[in-house]
This record gives sequence, structure tokens and C-alpha cells, in this order.
Amino acid sequence: MRLALDAMGGDFGPQPNVSGALRALAAAPDLTLTLVGDQAQLAPLLAAAGPYPHDRLTVLHSADTVGMKEKPVEAFRKKPDNSIAVSWKLLVTKQIDGLVSAGNTGAVVAGGLFSKRFLKGVRRPGIAALMPTAKGRTVVLDVGANVFPKPSHLLQYGVMGSVYARLALGIERPTIGLMNVGEEEGKGHELVNKTYELFRNSPLAPQFIGNVEGRDIHRGACDVIVTDGFVGNVILKQAEGAFELLMGLVAKEVVGALTVERDAAAAALKAMVSKLHHSAAGGAPLLGIDGVCVICHGSSDERSIAGALAVAATCVRTKLNDKISEEIAALPALPGDE
Amino acid sequence: MRLALDAMGGDFGPQPNVSGALRALAAAPDLTLTLVGDQAQLAPLLAAAGPYPHDRLTVLHSADTVGMKEKPVEAFRKKPDNSIAVSWKLLVTKQIDGLVSAGNTGAVVAGGLFSKRFLKGVRRPGIAALMPTAKGRTVVLDVGANVFPKPSHLLQYGVMGSVYARLALGIERPTIGLMNVGEEEGKGHELVNKTYELFRNSPLAPQFIGNVEGRDIHRGACDVIVTDGFVGNVILKQAEGAFELLMGLVAKEVVGALTVERDAAAAALKAMVSKLHHSAAGGAPLLGIDGVCVICHGSSDERSIAGALAVAATCVRTKLNDKISEEIAALPALPGDE
Repeated sequence: MRLALDAMGGDFGPQPNVSGALRALAAAPDLTLTLVGDQAQLAPLLAAAGPYPHDRLTVLHSADTVGMKEKPVEAFRKKPDNSIAVSWKLLVTKQIDGLVSAGNTGAVVAGGLFSKRFLKGVRRPGIAALMPTAKGRTVVLDVGANVFPKPSHLLQYGVMGSVYARLALGIERPTIGLMNVGEEEGKGHELVNKTYELFRNSPLAPQFIGNVEGRDIHRGACDVIVTDGFVGNVILKQAEGAFELLMGLVAKEVVGALTVERDAAAAALKAMVSKLHHSAAGGAPLLGIDGVCVICHGSSDERSIAGALAVAATCVRTKLNDKISEEIAALPALPGDE
Repeated sequence: MRLALDAMGGDFGPQPNVSGALRALAAAPDLTLTLVGDQAQLAPLLAAAGPYPHDRLTVLHSADTVGMKEKPVEAFRKKPDNSIAVSWKLLVTKQIDGLVSAGNTGAVVAGGLFSKRFLKGVRRPGIAALMPTAKGRTVVLDVGANVFPKPSHLLQYGVMGSVYARLALGIERPTIGLMNVGEEEGKGHELVNKTYELFRNSPLAPQFIGNVEGRDIHRGACDVIVTDGFVGNVILKQAEGAFELLMGLVAKEVVGALTVERDAAAAALKAMVSKLHHSAAGGAPLLGIDGVCVICHGSSDERSIAGALAVAATCVRTKLNDKISEEIAALPALPGDE
């Protein structure tokens, strides 16, 4: 298992990447890791980190870093030797099985689009995020790679999300819902109406439960929710904001109302927050790429980076891409809606 | 102040409408109310309700009801005497100042579109919802009237949302954000990019803070969030689902972890839930209509209906529409993007 980590990615620079990498190495003896980034910054962090398996960790120097707010296309043109581009090069040349980055999401996706190494038959890659529900977790995709998709892209996201739910969540026959503004057929705009028809007439029809609404996301109405990258991105980030707001209010208004058991309540809340926090999810794979790419939250910490490396390892180990390729190949001819 | 209430609207039939109406009448001595609906169902509910001001409450019989899942256009064709259509007739003929409905949202909006009584210069009405934030409340629009808008519609939503935030929330100079997938200019798709340009070159420019992301909604990053009706609808309903999930988990994992102070914690949580629950917001006005129309959640209870009637009364009392008309008239020529 060979993975690369964009060691410069994220809001906090190389430190959480280095610690997350070492944590992942300790947890998975079959993992070898390439840290891609500025040697001058990485060397002292590694030196200070204490003992680690030198034979399983190498540093590959890259001179540049894409800023978290830089425009991806410009950044790739001006800084061809950036850590994201170098990581992609390792993947495209099959020197690694997967890459992980907490860097500028647009740039990571752009690296994948530029590579043109999509799985055979895949029209556009999509990012699959796991979101917490009352019943467990739901795969939501796309959460930001493809903000104005075609119906055929969304159908393929159904295929890829279903395979991911099977392999990552262990759900034998995942149910699939289409995000819409109402449950009834015919709701919404042209994109969702055409996509609905595609699902109904595809091999996924038995798994397709039809339209779902915003309130169904956290209720766990289905195992996979298919949506465009604009809506999916808002969904993913709104969940984070709602979580922040509500947990803050609970700390103040519920825990704060107690005296004798205030500490016990605070500890229980802290445990709940830790379990639900985005860092617990690790990272979200960019599905449809020939190779594994896992994208992390910009504010990833050590736990999050280690978790994302574990997600990437799972994708490699379960041969996720082979399964996706099989099911994409089994789809009937798609509309020429590109 | 003359309002009409679609007494048949909502998931629970006429009962919460009747109780909500009586609660609103008791709270506002200047309110006169027309209950629109099936006389045979409403009469016994009113008879059982105890004393109420008969001079301020009348029932207007309508034979039909639009089901919560019926297709609006079909329902209006097959059942022209439905309670939503009859309520709209009262508004269009100026027999009332405003209407409130917890019925099929699509049908209520369709009634407004069919009426063609938009405020002068308004291209498309939009629904403005108030959402809870860490700083108070934010106006989000459109939350479902217009799922595939044009840039000029979104600019006008900025105008209407800003007036609503001023009059309903008392914010002198509301800040406006455009929902997008990232803060940086140029993110997202054509609709948001063109809308961004329109805002930057409009009289709203000093209030426009640029793009906001999903996580900004509940952080209270701005007073008004402008988005298309598809995204807005998902946002509104996702907040409800996230709220349900998290409050359920807190009850189980935090309150449930206590012994001595379990009742105190449960009471504090209940108070918090009640304050944040969608029924506390009352209803969301459909802005841009010549007259006031307030749309409620399908599962509205007595408190919610009374609250929605109060929202409608506020819109009438503050002459919201006069202010919207003034500011719409002050916009420079809009693109012909219809």
C-alpha cells in the first residue's frame, strides 16, 4: 500500500500533516508513505517527532504550495511544482496507489481533471462525503467537484456512491435518493427531472427510492444521496455550521444550567462532539479517478489526516475502483448530454 | 388589518388552523380574520373552541382542498374552488391585506404566480425564511418559489430580503451574502457569477459582502443570504433535519448520562428546542406579491399558525410592500435575462 500525502495542505501548514502521517504509519504496518512538500519545513518537524519507521516514510520535495484561497487554474500555471501537482504526478505514473490532501479542494480536483485519468466510462469525477444520520451515515455526492453537472453525471454518481456505501459502510444493497425540493416526481428543475428518469430506467432502479428532501439527509432516509456539486457543497458545510451553532447552544443553555452534574454533562457533550466532528470522518474520496484521491477538510487536525489516510487505504484495499469500473460498464448507453 | 387563513392547509387538517386563528385574534385586537375552508368541518371546531370575537372572525366556505402532495397546476385546474385559490381571490380583489397558508407550498406559490399581481418591477416572487444563527437570525431567500432563477431575480431577492430584514429584524442596514461553494470571487457556476457582478454594480453594493458558504448560514455571517429556490429549500429543510438529529442525540447522550440533574437538563433542553423549533418562526412571506402572503411549514401547530398570522400582520403594518416597491424602482436597468 503506497500512499502520498500533500504535506503542505490545510489551514495549519505541515504540522498536522506530519503528525497525522506518523499516526497512520503506526496504525497500518503495510503502509508506505510519501510526504510531498517543502523539505526545509518538513525535515525539522520529522526530526522533532521522535522515532518513526524510516523505511516506510520518504519526503519528496516540492518547491511550491497552492494557497487555500488561490484560483486553482492560475496556481497550477504559475506554480507547476506545487505539492498537489507533484502528488498527482505520483498517482498518474502509478508510483503510488492513492493520494491524500487537505489543501485547496478546487486545486486537488483540478489536478484530477487535468490528469484526464478517469476510470473508463466515467464522465466526471465526484466527491463522496459521509454525513451523520439518525441511523448511521449516508454517502452524499457530489459535494463540490462538479457544480453544474449533467443528468448522466448524476446517474454515474449513483453508481459510484452505491459502490462506496457497500465497501466503506458495509451496506449490501444501498438505497439511493435524489436530492430535490419535494418528494413527488416532477418537483424541481430540469436537471433533477431528467436524472430521475435516468435512474428509473437504469440497473439502479431497484435501489432508487426517488426524490429526497433536505430534512431527509440527517434522518438517514437512504444510504446514498445524489446531488450536484453546488448543492452538495452547501449541504456539507451547512451541517458543519448547524453542528457548531447547536453544540454551542447546548453547552451554554443545557450544560450551563446545571450545577452538581455540570462536569459530567460537559464530558458527555464533549464525547458526542468528538464523535460527530468532521475530523472523525477523515476525508472524502474523489470517485471516478484511476487511482485513489481523498480530500480532507481545510482545518484538518492530526486525527483527520490519519483518518483520511485510512480512508484512502480502504479504497485501495477493497479494490473500490475495480467495482466502480464494473458497474459503470454495466450501465446502458447514456444520453449525449455532455 | 384584514387577513385570511387557509383553514384546510397543513398536515393536520383544520384543527391547528382554527386554534392558531383564535390565538392570533386574542393577541391582536385590530385583526379581523376570514377562515377559508370547508364550513362543515370548521363549524364544529369553532363551536367547540369556546368564546371568541364573532365580529372579527368569519368563515368563507370553499368546497375543495389541495392535498399536500398534489401537483399544484393540476389541483388548481381540477379543483378551482380550493381553499388556497379562494384565499388568493380575496387578496387579489383587495378584500384582505394578507393571507396565510400551511398548505401545499407549491400550490400557494402557484396561486401567487397565476394571480400575476406582482409588485411593479418585480420579476419573480421569492420566499424569505428566517433561520437561527449564532448572532440572532438571518433572512434566507428564495427557499422554494423559484428553483431555477435568473441573476436579475437574485438581485431583486437581495432588495426584498434587505427590506424584510430591516422591517422584521430591525437591522438598519442589513448585510447581504450570495450563497456559493467558496468565498472567493469566481467560484461556482454561471448563475452565481453573473449575480455577483449584478450586486457589485448595484445600489446594494455597499451592503453586499460577496460570497458566503454553507457553514456561514448558522454562523450569522450576514443578515440576508440570497440563493436560488432549490438550494434555499434544501438549506431550510436540512436545518430542520440537523436540528432533529442533534437534539435527539443530546437528549440521549448528554441528558441521558445524568442522574441527579437529569430533569433540570431535560427542561433546559426542552426550552432550547422550543425556542429554535421551526414553529417559533411562524411563517415565511412570499415577497414580491402585491399583497401579503405568508407560507407556513406543513406540520404547523397552533403556535406556528398564530405566529404566521403575526408575521403577516407585521408585513402589512410596516408597509413592507411600499418599501420594496421603492427600492425595486431605484434599481438601475436589469439585464434582459428572462
